[in-house]
Amino acid sequence: MTANSFTVTVGRVSRELPTIEVGEMGRVPLVEFLGDVEFTNAVADELRALVPEDAEMLMSVSTTCIPLTHALSERTGLPYVIVRKKRRTYLRDPLIQEVQSMTLGVNETLWLDGRHAARLRGRRVVILTDVVSTGGTSLAMARLVERAGGQLSCFLSAFRQGEPGIDVKYLQELPKVL
Amino acid sequence: MTANSFTVTVGRVSRELPTIEVGEMGRVPLVEFLGDVEFTNAVADELRALVPEDAEMLMSVSTTCIPLTHALSERTGLPYVIVRKKRRTYLRDPLIQEVQSMTLGVNETLWLDGRHAARLRGRRVVILTDVVSTGGTSLAMARLVERAGGQLSCFLSAFRQGEPGIDVKYLQELPKVL
Repeated sequence: MTANSFTVTVGRVSRELPTIEVGEMGRVPLVEFLGDVEFTNAVADELRALVPEDAEMLMSVSTTCIPLTHALSERTGLPYVIVRKKRRTYLRDPLIQEVQSMTLGVNETLWLDGRHAARLRGRRVVILTDVVSTGGTSLAMARLVERAGGQLSCFLSAFRQGEPGIDVKYLQELPKVL
Repeated sequence: MTANSFTVTVGRVSRELPTIEVGEMGRVPLVEFLGDVEFTNAVADELRALVPEDAEMLMSVSTTCIPLTHALSERTGLPYVIVRKKRRTYLRDPLIQEVQSMTLGVNETLWLDGRHAARLRGRRVVILTDVVSTGGTSLAMARLVERAGGQLSCFLSAFRQGEPGIDVKYLQELPKVL
């Protein structure tokens, strides 16, 4: 481990993560599932054990967490929905949810297609992220689940970074600053 | 098939696709891999046979095609890179490529992280899309491959819709207007 990389090992797969500058805070490791089938599948294999037995659906958010969500859905047999961060013209009757960000000046809006929202009604939903830090995005997704008539099963994340304001199951801790 | 849905069958999986309005052109079927592991895997199973033997990498574009790219990468053993449609602060030395769109007023920029561009050098790359229509996005990706020092292996798409200006292998044709 140096300031420019950080090594994680999940199952039998190790990755030297690059680090990125985040404002004045220093450098943090960058987890990347996009473009890495082996690492994605290793993480999904381990996350599988953390999915509650009574869970009925998975929800995650675009973009970087999509391969992991696909892989975890495949392993658990639970269907999944993806919340978008950008309005798309083909979304029908979307649920729109603001993320209450703790970082001043960063604001994000989540969009959930009405057709997918309908799939959540009456279901216990696991909310999945790749890295949870403040928990703001996860909380906004929980609000979407509730508004769609579903129930939160649990928050689940591959990695935790910092002190999220939610109770979340995760595989490993990442340093917040290197 | 009605104006509001269109049925496709790939392998043993059938889906009644919803249709969406596209300007004054009428309605077109909406292919959706996000949230549908079974359909994604069925399409990847069939696409596998169309990947040239000498291919060394896959390239695709976010967001809707990501699960399919993961699944095809898994089946072929070929690594993949994802081109982004939005600038991300963590992209390092990105290659930036405008999409020459044939639809007036629609303009798009593709971003390829410099670290991923480096993986393309000297490689034969399959450019994958979920639906190819004009071929504009695929051509912009081919330009990225070339600029990164790679070579185009072939254009590959799950579905074709309309008359793309490129030579592309695909599984099935979708109607352009219903």
